[in-house]
Amino acid sequence: MKVVIIGCSGHYSYALEDIKNDRDASVAGIAPGSEGEDMSAVYQEVCNLGYTPRLFDDYISMLDEVKPDIAVINCFFGHHARVTMQVLKREIHAFVEKPVATTFEELEELKDSYSRSGAHLAAMFGIRYYPHFYTAWNMVRDGTVGQIRLMNAQKSYKLGRRNEFYKIRSTYGGTIPWVGSHAIDWLYWFSGEKFESVFASHSARYNRGHGELEVSALCHFTLSNQVFGSVSIDYLRPQKAPTHDDDRLRVVGTKGILEVRNGKVFLMNDEIDGIREIPLQSKRSMFLEFIEQVRGQGECLISAQDSFYVTEACLKARQSADEEKVILF
Amino acid sequence: MKVVIIGCSGHYSYALEDIKNDRDASVAGIAPGSEGEDMSAVYQEVCNLGYTPRLFDDYISMLDEVKPDIAVINCFFGHHARVTMQVLKREIHAFVEKPVATTFEELEELKDSYSRSGAHLAAMFGIRYYPHFYTAWNMVRDGTVGQIRLMNAQKSYKLGRRNEFYKIRSTYGGTIPWVGSHAIDWLYWFSGEKFESVFASHSARYNRGHGELEVSALCHFTLSNQVFGSVSIDYLRPQKAPTHDDDRLRVVGTKGILEVRNGKVFLMNDEIDGIREIPLQSKRSMFLEFIEQVRGQGECLISAQDSFYVTEACLKARQSADEEKVILF
Repeated sequence: MKVVIIGCSGHYSYALEDIKNDRDASVAGIAPGSEGEDMSAVYQEVCNLGYTPRLFDDYISMLDEVKPDIAVINCFFGHHARVTMQVLKREIHAFVEKPVATTFEELEELKDSYSRSGAHLAAMFGIRYYPHFYTAWNMVRDGTVGQIRLMNAQKSYKLGRRNEFYKIRSTYGGTIPWVGSHAIDWLYWFSGEKFESVFASHSARYNRGHGELEVSALCHFTLSNQVFGSVSIDYLRPQKAPTHDDDRLRVVGTKGILEVRNGKVFLMNDEIDGIREIPLQSKRSMFLEFIEQVRGQGECLISAQDSFYVTEACLKARQSADEEKVILF
Repeated sequence: MKVVIIGCSGHYSYALEDIKNDRDASVAGIAPGSEGEDMSAVYQEVCNLGYTPRLFDDYISMLDEVKPDIAVINCFFGHHARVTMQVLKREIHAFVEKPVATTFEELEELKDSYSRSGAHLAAMFGIRYYPHFYTAWNMVRDGTVGQIRLMNAQKSYKLGRRNEFYKIRSTYGGTIPWVGSHAIDWLYWFSGEKFESVFASHSARYNRGHGELEVSALCHFTLSNQVFGSVSIDYLRPQKAPTHDDDRLRVVGTKGILEVRNGKVFLMNDEIDGIREIPLQSKRSMFLEFIEQVRGQGECLISAQDSFYVTEACLKARQSADEEKVILF
């Protein structure tokens, strides 16, 4: 099972953390996916894991020469789609950073490319695999909150100093698709409902010299069965805050309310006195499950359809914020 | 300082809790404000405080015979405006349950009535006076979070069994104006910004036999200076939850993030390591400050303009939810 890494601008570490636990998989090649990506740190990390990857300047040459089974794609976010299409048309499986596309046109092209390919694709919605979110999702699936009626999701990050490509919409894609995509995914993944409309807002004010990068955003989704979901997004978490991020999800159902906060899960429902902290289930490995699926031995939590659908929702939310109007699905 | 109480469907207790601390004020009369209100419990409470109020069937007769200085108005929510107009045109000061009107027409009539009257009016936005909210508001005013960029407000209540008038829009007014008005007020009060647009949704599904009463709602406000605010509202808090309500506010600014939760205030900012719980300021008394203002000896935290403006915002949010479109201010 030969794996190559294209780019170093996203979460390639999801793959590196897991691959060492698979005896039959190895990193065979590394190349930038966007002009200007410096691959030397990734190269060193991969060597440190005991692999001897070839380093390429051009990912197309790498794909054609190495002929990998799997490509891990995480270049500038605005280039995910075009790189992934090159991967899929060679029947190479694509483990790709989210959002999988940053324009509607590229998303459609990518979907076409996927449907013509026999390869598998999954977006790196890695938070689905975090024990607190996975445990919460299982609680909801088990009916502990009844029918979901309302969801409040939060992503809050420290800004720090971001790479230059974050400052330009065409390479960054926007804060709703980049940071918000996780939370938009939770709304869909937890509820199992379909998106019906979105109204969103975003602002690049007070972004400390980060060009077009939006540092505050808010989305309001309506889903099927009159389920509603808010997504609050910011890069305004103070530098001295205890963690980089503050991910939260509150799920309000007909029988209970479940919250993910501070890496923990809290439940109130009709059968519990007060608020109960739920023990976390053990960690599952996203990239190992992706490899298993490629081998035909299972399914990872993220389907290609999910990856496309959530990306579409992100782009519609961004469109709503740009145009200040409700966008229907 | 003669006070009368009209109706018993809202927070008349705000007045009763405070009035005993004013030696020169007394409850002189009691009457229903909506047909069917049973005033016997209020009457007993007032007598227990040592007052000897007259009990009327008709609040108009009471106003004309008792000639009070202040009327406390809390009948069915759909009748607040018409009762308050009767009060104001007699130059009687109005301490009125929020929302002060439940239709745009009545709100305009009420504003006219107020502007022609010399009397004072304040809506019972009593949560402004809760120590945790008042402390948080002062922290924000003192600049601890810098410029506000994003706010997330939450109201979550137990439903229980509500009075019949909650089940009909014309007497209840809707869940966004009734429950949500507090949270909508926080967005305005904390930020000092003007509302520019609202998109909202609400649903009466799973309301356990409560007619038209909405049990879930979500509002997305845009305010001046690209400030955004979400308001999540539900009546789905489980019966066994530790408290009746779960009021929350998160204020994200350019220098810090402040949260009100569980009756406490938490602050992170550029000068604090980690998260700091802020000691609460001592309680101020809404109705006593209202009486002081009537005497010309101060100002309560809630102006008539605030009362009208927040009511307008509630009605526009309800309209947005009814019509499923963005409403501009």
